Amino acid sequence: MNDSAKDAAAADSLPESGAAASSATGLSRRGLLGLALGGGVASLAVGVGAGLSGGVALGRARAEADAQRAYDFFGAHQAGITTPVQEHLHFASFDMMPRTDREDLVSLLQDWTYAASRMTQGLEVSATGAVGGDAEVPPDDTGEALGLTAAGLTITFGFGPTLFENDEGDRYGIASLRPERLERLPAFLGDDLDPQTSHGDLCIQACADDPQVAVHAIRNLSRIAFGRAKLRWSQLGFGKTSRTTSAQATPRNLFGFKDGTANILADDSVALDENVWLGPDDRPEWMVGGSYLVARKIAMRIETWDRVRLSEQNTIIGRDKGEGAPLSGGDEFAAPDFGTSAIDQNAHVRLAHPDQNDGIRILRRGFNYVNGNNDLGRLDAGLFFLSYQRDPAQFVSLQRRLSTDRMNEYVTHVGSGIWAVPGGSKPGSFVGADLFA
Amino acid sequence: MNDSAKDAAAADSLPESGAAASSATGLSRRGLLGLALGGGVASLAVGVGAGLSGGVALGRARAEADAQRAYDFFGAHQAGITTPVQEHLHFASFDMMPRTDREDLVSLLQDWTYAASRMTQGLEVSATGAVGGDAEVPPDDTGEALGLTAAGLTITFGFGPTLFENDEGDRYGIASLRPERLERLPAFLGDDLDPQTSHGDLCIQACADDPQVAVHAIRNLSRIAFGRAKLRWSQLGFGKTSRTTSAQATPRNLFGFKDGTANILADDSVALDENVWLGPDDRPEWMVGGSYLVARKIAMRIETWDRVRLSEQNTIIGRDKGEGAPLSGGDEFAAPDFGTSAIDQNAHVRLAHPDQNDGIRILRRGFNYVNGNNDLGRLDAGLFFLSYQRDPAQFVSLQRRLSTDRMNEYVTHVGSGIWAVPGGSKPGSFVGADLFA
Repeated sequence: MNDSAKDAAAADSLPESGAAASSATGLSRRGLLGLALGGGVASLAVGVGAGLSGGVALGRARAEADAQRAYDFFGAHQAGITTPVQEHLHFASFDMMPRTDREDLVSLLQDWTYAASRMTQGLEVSATGAVGGDAEVPPDDTGEALGLTAAGLTITFGFGPTLFENDEGDRYGIASLRPERLERLPAFLGDDLDPQTSHGDLCIQACADDPQVAVHAIRNLSRIAFGRAKLRWSQLGFGKTSRTTSAQATPRNLFGFKDGTANILADDSVALDENVWLGPDDRPEWMVGGSYLVARKIAMRIETWDRVRLSEQNTIIGRDKGEGAPLSGGDEFAAPDFGTSAIDQNAHVRLAHPDQNDGIRILRRGFNYVNGNNDLGRLDAGLFFLSYQRDPAQFVSLQRRLSTDRMNEYVTHVGSGIWAVPGGSKPGSFVGADLFA
Repeated sequence: MNDSAKDAAAADSLPESGAAASSATGLSRRGLLGLALGGGVASLAVGVGAGLSGGVALGRARAEADAQRAYDFFGAHQAGITTPVQEHLHFASFDMMPRTDREDLVSLLQDWTYAASRMTQGLEVSATGAVGGDAEVPPDDTGEALGLTAAGLTITFGFGPTLFENDEGDRYGIASLRPERLERLPAFLGDDLDPQTSHGDLCIQACADDPQVAVHAIRNLSRIAFGRAKLRWSQLGFGKTSRTTSAQATPRNLFGFKDGTANILADDSVALDENVWLGPDDRPEWMVGGSYLVARKIAMRIETWDRVRLSEQNTIIGRDKGEGAPLSGGDEFAAPDFGTSAIDQNAHVRLAHPDQNDGIRILRRGFNYVNGNNDLGRLDAGLFFLSYQRDPAQFVSLQRRLSTDRMNEYVTHVGSGIWAVPGGSKPGSFVGADLFA
């Protein structure tokens, strides 16, 4: 950020720069529909490697490119779903403020789109940003990302069931457009949900390879929402626990096991169309190109787990801890053979596998979390599970199947949420615009 | 990790490998004094760059080398003090368990030394580790760092005042060796300390460029302590807010300002000897080569700060937000001119500056933190301040001077701790051994 060349390029393509910004939100609400930022700012993800010789050098070049990577905010789908999973997460849930109206909601989504389209390119939330504006007003940008790159930032927005209708009724005139399937998840066996880490009218998933960039995004979007929406809860995560491209090594969760071996990958368009994206024939129409996001904060009793003998850990998961290979044989990517007794009837891999669930698959995008510790000196740690699916029923069906999972002895679901994630938006429009058309 | 070549190299130099490990702690207590690990395992920080052409390629090679970097655990001083500040922190405070004795404490320090000396080299906590041992016992290592590099991990140990003597008396026969200056910090104006995030018999500072590596270290050291010490509190941090080498750009704290511009750097041996390290003539003798660590959890009212006009933010800090230059002129590294009125009488930079504090300097090593949010929808965020000094009086004096700091309106100290950090240990010995000689 703080790159004057980048800012100049952005300013050129903006009908109105943030120079006029000094409203209570710190951003002008005017002119946002007319902006053409996403198309104007070229992605910073350049092809490096020219002039380097050898695979090692290319590997290094790739690492450098990763740090510089910027993903377009605009597109057919929202970024942050099939995007190669980044290293860090800041997830936030928001509730709309009392007495807000449809115009407030629309302007919020416009302002969020504007800021997100800039931040994902490594720019500040407005052209004047943290230090370029009138010194006698609060800055447009909080500044802690000055000097940092985009770091692969993606910002993904979702709409919760209560946005469409809650105890106060149809606040925004969109109750009739609520997707039939978008409703609070049913209670599952063993749930111990904390309302303080569950639900919410809106959600934002910010992922980046630098935690300060992800935190900067949520902080500024929260600040921009002032007077319209309020942070309900938020969670940081690290050490992605799934992969979305075959180039990514399978990471490990806090049970020490590889997680995400059989995930849906970004280049598997058939599986994505079948399991993740709402297609042209899906309804409501404004959700075409979108998906449903389920978040589950899964607390792990890691100290208890750490006292389980290795053979039992392997049995519970149904894979071996070292390689991640199914206990029925082969390597990590071998298909598990559920016909043998090598894989326990209630092993996690068996219960979760598509073959045992009428082919149901979901795209997982979870992260590990550690929130300090409790009074007993145990780490408050676990998996912040995120999954994208074409129909919430996919998650519900899988989660019910896991009711006899041997792993349940070591986990408790303490947070939950579901959001409709609209398709991507076009430059000049804003996220979820079709919902208000 | 999980590198058989590395493990083999380590095993060669170990008189006793973890193969014999199956005690309640997961590690053998025997033979630790005889181990010669640190000297036997060469640092993995190899000079890369050969065969690459051009500065860009070298820059990339350096990034790669950073990821692979491993710091020796053993040495004249503990690592993690002047070591170039890493990207991530997991800090943990421990209390000894009731009815533990001197032997328990010594064996704990031995076991911690053994594990730390391995983990800092990218190895598992024992030779058998997560998957190489007897499958019918709990693994020695929790496994989530399998496949990850050392990622620049440093592990730094400290002894709190209560370790020497507490309400139960002189539990470990070391009360007479307590450094006179090692006592709970005095109350400061505006303190609002939470005992749940303050104090502790022992502390461990784990820093790494990968948060999963830092978390893995604290988790395993906590597990190894089972029955002897219990986690009292812990805190994750990111986005280092200080630099310790001139090669590091000055990072920004969550007020959006550069932080650490005037920090003591690792190559300034005169300043280090004067301000950080206890020298040969300092007492007690077992602290020679050591330092005192102060931790302060400083909550920032960032939402309030974000509504302060830029000129006022600059005045409060005494530097300009963009470049970090003192308001008296020049660039970031220009000496502030306190003779002019450009820098407010109660600006942070004035009150904290050595020129205004009889030359007192400390080595800062803080990190930003975000622990979700509170019920008002405000981020629970701030600065986890860490500083090393030759005498706790340095911190006390500076902190008292800050009592009129204009920044105080936006911060509250909610956690506090002080620990004596012994000098580095030699291969074959353990951290703090001189205290028990």
